[in-house]
Amino acid sequence: MRAPLTVLLACLALPAAADSLRDHALTLFEPLPDRIDTVAGHPVTPEQVDLGRMLYFDPRISDTGQFACATCHNPATGGDSNRDTSIGHAWQTGPQNAPTIFNATLNSARFWQGWAEDLPATGDSLLQVGAERTGTPERMVATLASMPAYVDAFTRTFPDDADPVTFANATTALESFIATLVTPAPFDAWLKGEDSALSPQAREGLALFIDKGCATCHQGVNLGGNSYHPFRVIRTPGTEGQPESIQCFSVVEDDGTQYLFRAGTLRNITLTSPYFSEGSVRSLPLAIQIMGRTQLGTDLSDEETDRIAAFLESLEGTPPPITLPVLPRESALTPAPLPPLREE
Amino acid sequence: MRAPLTVLLACLALPAAADSLRDHALTLFEPLPDRIDTVAGHPVTPEQVDLGRMLYFDPRISDTGQFACATCHNPATGGDSNRDTSIGHAWQTGPQNAPTIFNATLNSARFWQGWAEDLPATGDSLLQVGAERTGTPERMVATLASMPAYVDAFTRTFPDDADPVTFANATTALESFIATLVTPAPFDAWLKGEDSALSPQAREGLALFIDKGCATCHQGVNLGGNSYHPFRVIRTPGTEGQPESIQCFSVVEDDGTQYLFRAGTLRNITLTSPYFSEGSVRSLPLAIQIMGRTQLGTDLSDEETDRIAAFLESLEGTPPPITLPVLPRESALTPAPLPPLREE
Ligand code: HEC
Ligand code: HEC
Ligand code: HEC
Ligand code: HEC
Ligand SMILES: [Ca+2]
Ligand SMILES: [Ca+2]
Repeated sequence: MRAPLTVLLACLALPAAADSLRDHALTLFEPLPDRIDTVAGHPVTPEQVDLGRMLYFDPRISDTGQFACATCHNPATGGDSNRDTSIGHAWQTGPQNAPTIFNATLNSARFWQGWAEDLPATGDSLLQVGAERTGTPERMVATLASMPAYVDAFTRTFPDDADPVTFANATTALESFIATLVTPAPFDAWLKGEDSALSPQAREGLALFIDKGCATCHQGVNLGGNSYHPFRVIRTPGTEGQPESIQCFSVVEDDGTQYLFRAGTLRNITLTSPYFSEGSVRSLPLAIQIMGRTQLGTDLSDEETDRIAAFLESLEGTPPPITLPVLPRESALTPAPLPPLREE
Repeated sequence: MRAPLTVLLACLALPAAADSLRDHALTLFEPLPDRIDTVAGHPVTPEQVDLGRMLYFDPRISDTGQFACATCHNPATGGDSNRDTSIGHAWQTGPQNAPTIFNATLNSARFWQGWAEDLPATGDSLLQVGAERTGTPERMVATLASMPAYVDAFTRTFPDDADPVTFANATTALESFIATLVTPAPFDAWLKGEDSALSPQAREGLALFIDKGCATCHQGVNLGGNSYHPFRVIRTPGTEGQPESIQCFSVVEDDGTQYLFRAGTLRNITLTSPYFSEGSVRSLPLAIQIMGRTQLGTDLSDEETDRIAAFLESLEGTPPPITLPVLPRESALTPAPLPPLREE
């Protein structure tokens, strides 16, 4: 009769252990809300969500007619692009990797670099930057206003506005659509009490993640996305000829805000390779080890790295099903797309 | 008691007129099938459709990770791109406008120019071209084979194949997905007997479309997409400095197959601006008048043009709702996207 007793003990023991880890975890993290009802100070309405979805998938808001929000923040592939750095207007590659749009509404720190802290923390400035990456807000508004079905949709969505087709209203609608893109994951189920949602390995990884100090910078509802820290790429010998972005990382003196980077969200990190603000690392285990070395001054063993990776797996969530919009057709007044200018 | 009689006469008269126009129309055109069960000689299975949808929306099949089929054939904006000519690998703009993917399976003549007649009329060659526009089939297969969830999907879809992740199977799946993209329109309802589906103006436009000779080249189920004809852009005075593509059209001597162009489908033509193989004309009335002048040697009046346009409106159909796929995640073996090479 020993076996049943062992089983019984195990059953008693596990929940207790899980509970104390969970209690600790709940002081650092939060499960995702079931839904987000307000964003940037305005309520999320169904009309805004529908209009925002249209805008999000419409490449005609870019000057070349080639880029939609979804091009760089693709909900089919983790809400980001799979490129290291994004390609924008005039085929320039910018310096930075496009972050995932999933759960982005819940980031209190926006953008990779510290300078964004100075901008008002509203979506307006964010989307301004987003639109400017591939065109101008003026041309975007002219394009939208040229299509009767868009004018109808804006009028329906903002019935009190005399002239509803504005950049600010487009931003409001986009924010509301983005607010629907939350991705509940096994970790959320576990935080809410479902013990089996995390494998034993993932729970060990979570304990390591807390004990090693990762949660100092990656905490809150998005396990990141709410603080800036020093982090910098330096040139190392033996990497000449490679793009700067795939060279090694190490801690350097913090010599000013331009070297402050946001500790990004780790939600869906299994889907958002390549990693870091320059998109320079494609392997998650390597990214974890770089973090240990540069941010914590510790060499994580392969086994520790695997466990932490197993925990990070549990942050891969399920996005809501998205139906592709059927977009308004152009009119004679719609500006023609510009030729694909190149930055020489 | 005269009024009711007039009404009665009108009721009797209209269907008769509609019927004779319809009878004539049915000798030239065909309503869309409710569904397409076989394509390129293979049956369409639900597994193929699901896998094809994944491939269709996956930018990782292109070398830069930036182009999906949906980039140039965007189901949100009429199944085409809104650019004159498409941008592909190395940011080259090709010479040709991307045709709509809607109902494309029902085209018997593929591609704008006659040379495609020499290729086997299977999807294989088409998609070969499609993939080569932005990458190579070899790299595409290596990319797909690197992702376990893709390997599972191919195995489920082609259970008899020892090595199911092949370009040919990807093509089969894509063909099956594309076969679902049929867009039944008011004109189909009218052909099937629903009188009120066409406005009186649209019916007059249809009569003109037949009488003027448009239906000689634009007939069959897709009102086009099944024959090649001479059509050529020539340089005209006063247009120096403009791209060749926005200059005037006129009939020239047919001096060889390279000047044969496909009379494209007119289904969803209200959504597929810009027009012609070079995407050189953005206005539908202008495209209609150019056709009259170059293909039929006749100047259509504004009124005739409007009626024909009203008929073409009735070819705007409803695509099936498309849920964006959630795509497999990359593995350590997935090739990294190439830098955005430029053709200098
Ligand atoms: C050409 C690529 C590209 C396009 C197109 C683009 N973005 Fe971005 N987006 C980026 C990059 C890169 C960043 C990170 C910028 C930084 O950190 O400085 C970013 C950041 C963001 C953020 C901040 C996310 C966070 O983690 O807090 C939001 C929100 C956003 N974009 C929304 C949009 C919307 C909405 C559109 C369409 C109007 C759009 N983007 C278009 C590349 C793009
Ligand atoms: C002192 C703060 C700090 C600590 C501690 C820290 N990180 Fe980070 N983390 C950052 C910053 C800042 C970035 C963004 C750097 C950049 O990309 O420029 C980041 C980025 C990451 C990324 C890549 C995110 C992405 O989307 O590209 C991963 C993965 C990550 N951290 C995991 C960890 C793990 C695991 C630990 C513990 C071993 C850890 N971090 C500890 C600050 C920290
Ligand atoms: C960079 C733009 C671009 C991409 C990406 C692209 N295509 Fe095309 N596609 C075109 C152009 C342009 C044509 C017309 C070529 C011609 O007529 O010579 C075309 C023609 C076609 C046709 C023939 C349509 C007809 O009317 O008969 C099919 C089918 C097709 N593409 C499917 C695909 C699929 C599937 C993919 C993804 C594997 C794809 N395309 C990727 C631009 C593109
Ligand atoms: C002798 C054959 C012929 C006749 C007659 C003809 N067409 Fe065309 N049509 C073509 C060809 C060939 C093209 C494609 C030319 C190109 O783009 O290179 C075309 C293209 C078009 C297009 C643009 C399709 C697109 O997707 O870009 C429209 C619209 C059109 N025709 C309408 C008409 C109308 C209306 C008439 C009658 C007034 C007509 N056509 C008569 C052969 C013909
Ligand atoms: Ca990333
Ligand atoms: Ca077109």
